[in-house]
Amino acid sequence: MLEELKDRVCAANLALAAEGLVFRTWGNVSGVDREAGLMVIKPSGVPYDQMTPEQMAVVSLESGQRVEGPMAPSCDAATHLVLSRRLEGIGGVAHTHSLYATAWAQAKRAIPAIGTTHADYFSGPVPCTRIMTDEEIEGDYEANTGEVIVETLGDIPPMARPGVLVANHGPFVWGETPAQAVECAVILEHIAKLASLSADIDPYPRAVSPKLLEKHYRRKHGPDAYYGQK
Amino acid sequence: MLEELKDRVCAANLALAAEGLVFRTWGNVSGVDREAGLMVIKPSGVPYDQMTPEQMAVVSLESGQRVEGPMAPSCDAATHLVLSRRLEGIGGVAHTHSLYATAWAQAKRAIPAIGTTHADYFSGPVPCTRIMTDEEIEGDYEANTGEVIVETLGDIPPMARPGVLVANHGPFVWGETPAQAVECAVILEHIAKLASLSADIDPYPRAVSPKLLEKHYRRKHGPDAYYGQK
Amino acid sequence: MLEELKDRVCAANLALAAEGLVFRTWGNVSGVDREAGLMVIKPSGVPYDQMTPEQMAVVSLESGQRVEGPMAPSCDAATHLVLSRRLEGIGGVAHTHSLYATAWAQAKRAIPAIGTTHADYFSGPVPCTRIMTDEEIEGDYEANTGEVIVETLGDIPPMARPGVLVANHGPFVWGETPAQAVECAVILEHIAKLASLSADIDPYPRAVSPKLLEKHYRRKHGPDAYYGQK
Amino acid sequence: MLEELKDRVCAANLALAAEGLVFRTWGNVSGVDREAGLMVIKPSGVPYDQMTPEQMAVVSLESGQRVEGPMAPSCDAATHLVLSRRLEGIGGVAHTHSLYATAWAQAKRAIPAIGTTHADYFSGPVPCTRIMTDEEIEGDYEANTGEVIVETLGDIPPMARPGVLVANHGPFVWGETPAQAVECAVILEHIAKLASLSADIDPYPRAVSPKLLEKHYRRKHGPDAYYGQK
Repeated sequence: MLEELKDRVCAANLALAAEGLVFRTWGNVSGVDREAGLMVIKPSGVPYDQMTPEQMAVVSLESGQRVEGPMAPSCDAATHLVLSRRLEGIGGVAHTHSLYATAWAQAKRAIPAIGTTHADYFSGPVPCTRIMTDEEIEGDYEANTGEVIVETLGDIPPMARPGVLVANHGPFVWGETPAQAVECAVILEHIAKLASLSADIDPYPRAVSPKLLEKHYRRKHGPDAYYGQK
Repeated sequence: MLEELKDRVCAANLALAAEGLVFRTWGNVSGVDREAGLMVIKPSGVPYDQMTPEQMAVVSLESGQRVEGPMAPSCDAATHLVLSRRLEGIGGVAHTHSLYATAWAQAKRAIPAIGTTHADYFSGPVPCTRIMTDEEIEGDYEANTGEVIVETLGDIPPMARPGVLVANHGPFVWGETPAQAVECAVILEHIAKLASLSADIDPYPRAVSPKLLEKHYRRKHGPDAYYGQK
Repeated sequence: MLEELKDRVCAANLALAAEGLVFRTWGNVSGVDREAGLMVIKPSGVPYDQMTPEQMAVVSLESGQRVEGPMAPSCDAATHLVLSRRLEGIGGVAHTHSLYATAWAQAKRAIPAIGTTHADYFSGPVPCTRIMTDEEIEGDYEANTGEVIVETLGDIPPMARPGVLVANHGPFVWGETPAQAVECAVILEHIAKLASLSADIDPYPRAVSPKLLEKHYRRKHGPDAYYGQK
Repeated sequence: MLEELKDRVCAANLALAAEGLVFRTWGNVSGVDREAGLMVIKPSGVPYDQMTPEQMAVVSLESGQRVEGPMAPSCDAATHLVLSRRLEGIGGVAHTHSLYATAWAQAKRAIPAIGTTHADYFSGPVPCTRIMTDEEIEGDYEANTGEVIVETLGDIPPMARPGVLVANHGPFVWGETPAQAVECAVILEHIAKLASLSADIDPYPRAVSPKLLEKHYRRKHGPDAYYGQK
């Protein structure tokens, strides 16, 4: 069942670790198969060095129930489910506690778009959610975490701003595939580090102009992209 | 005598070094056998790359006297002894000069609970002791270091807040076993680094809500824990 | 055609990566042959681990048109071309998004000359360009990036100040050869890191005296240099 | 001539590099033979990976003239000579541009004694020299660098405060042997990093009490030392 997707989700989880974004067992990647109505995700609390595709948990995209796999899915599965359901066009979600992105999340501050490196991947600041209410925490906490991410994104197209910081927690990012979600997690951590180092020099650096933001984003995305080989 | 505990204490000391928490010969782990009334600890000033279980020093939990082992116990043995005697339910203590935790200790500031990563392991801020008095320093300095840690912890259950920063010095942490104490030292250093990076962005970040703190702590601890595999 | 220069430019690009200054495919080095009127540069978006001299793109120094090579030149080729044309005596240009130099560029602040390490290589602060106008961004953006670098350098001899930070973007550096441009990128990143660490301690550190600046620069450059072996 | 000392000085220079304190060819260690009236030092600008004892330069402690060795001595030899002549009891000097110690030197701030890690090795703050005058720079610059270090140390016994930061430049440290000077450079860099990380949390942290400073220093030095094995 979904053997190929399980392979890709397992590989993406291993890539997350290989990129140095995972500490202990914190961090997880999921992939979605919309036709099958299923989501594949890392099992909870499993060490990365022994991870196999067979261990991946398969859950229903609609109900969240486990339909296959020997192990309980990641604690954060409900967050992944909300994002997979609500964010149009995404095929994979990654969550990390990577150092610099988490530092911005803990400071409850959006990462400002202050450089072209940022603009190459995000069409504006990386937003940070509001603080969750006691009711949201006491209720279906993980699902509500997904809801507050969707609320924060608002009308922004998900692929133009492929990540959000959850206040006091850390980043959730996405892409068209699980592998692309991992790549986005890598880029976000780099951007977050760059922004931290800039903020050390100038605590509240001014954002790039809308024109520069658009120019760099369009160099790499959309019909007029001219970065790389055709 | 206590061969198994010596093996585990030696292994825990080597793990402390392997985790990158040791600089030169600074840092030590102990383990306690309450039935035997003995504590096993790293010898003083011995390089980690030649450490063997046979070198471990065995001291009386009550008197602190060395009862076995070819080498003098760590200078800090008296601190470990006070903690082992006074903190209920602990089986191992670790002390490091790890960079970020020591930086907070040198700044004499508790590490605020500003993220879920922190909340997963500590039920509140990582406390920092008061400055020790001249009398405490001139007297039985190492034992008094233990006493000021116990004083700082106060009524907090030791396993809910498994570590304290000693002002101007560095962290002491504990667990049910020597290995768990090392794991706690690893987590504390990570939390301390995250908090430092957050403080670079927002010098006095607001703590997480009591509800979020409790939620995350209970995801991993106690009867309602649901992280990992059952 | 220009086989030797292609070898050297390829080697310089690989050295840039080996020095840890490249993240993903960001960063590029070019070399110029003034007699032939040609510039050789890395192709766009190509992974460093598979790079070969044959892939290098050869473009006309005057027109910027590709005259040889199977792949499109780096997006930033037009910037390299302006610098190669306008900066007297340079033989190679390197561009990176290296962390600390980019942090200063994102903070839009020149790197102050606060140490002898800096003075050994740069005869004064590493300048930062003004912000580019919307017209410059909408027009020939990459060429205009080169123009604003030249404008920022003004009357300073290019080899006495072998690098400029482009505001909101990152550093462009140069040397008499492609290899020297890479060496300059390495030094600049080190200087930028040192300056960041100093600014953490004293946010606006005072520059070294003109006398010390000159003394150190002349220890390593010009007729009275006495560093190294004759 | 002085074959053993040349071996030890070469080994100490290689250790400096192996400890990660050397960037490019910056950094040097010397050793002194007071009976012979000679100082051995690294040659100028030589890559560390090809360094051999035979390359070491031998200079007269009194005149500074090269008396043996195929290569010119380090540019900084005159500084080493002044320290070797004027600081009683030292047998080796090391100079680095190590990141954190240099950051403090560039910020022109003494490293405050805010932790026991510091107190274990330095009996007080690591002092920073005043800025050198134009006359001192124009004159015998390197020798004057040594003089300003000696002036800064004043009445403090050299082995109780085995290092000084030269403002805008970097650290010079010493020990009873070349190897001990290298060890001191390692410790200083660690202390400097710890102090920087502490200053990130609390910009002007309060120094440890004189009592704690003395207690820790005496745990490792002097007749009452009780750290390590007897």
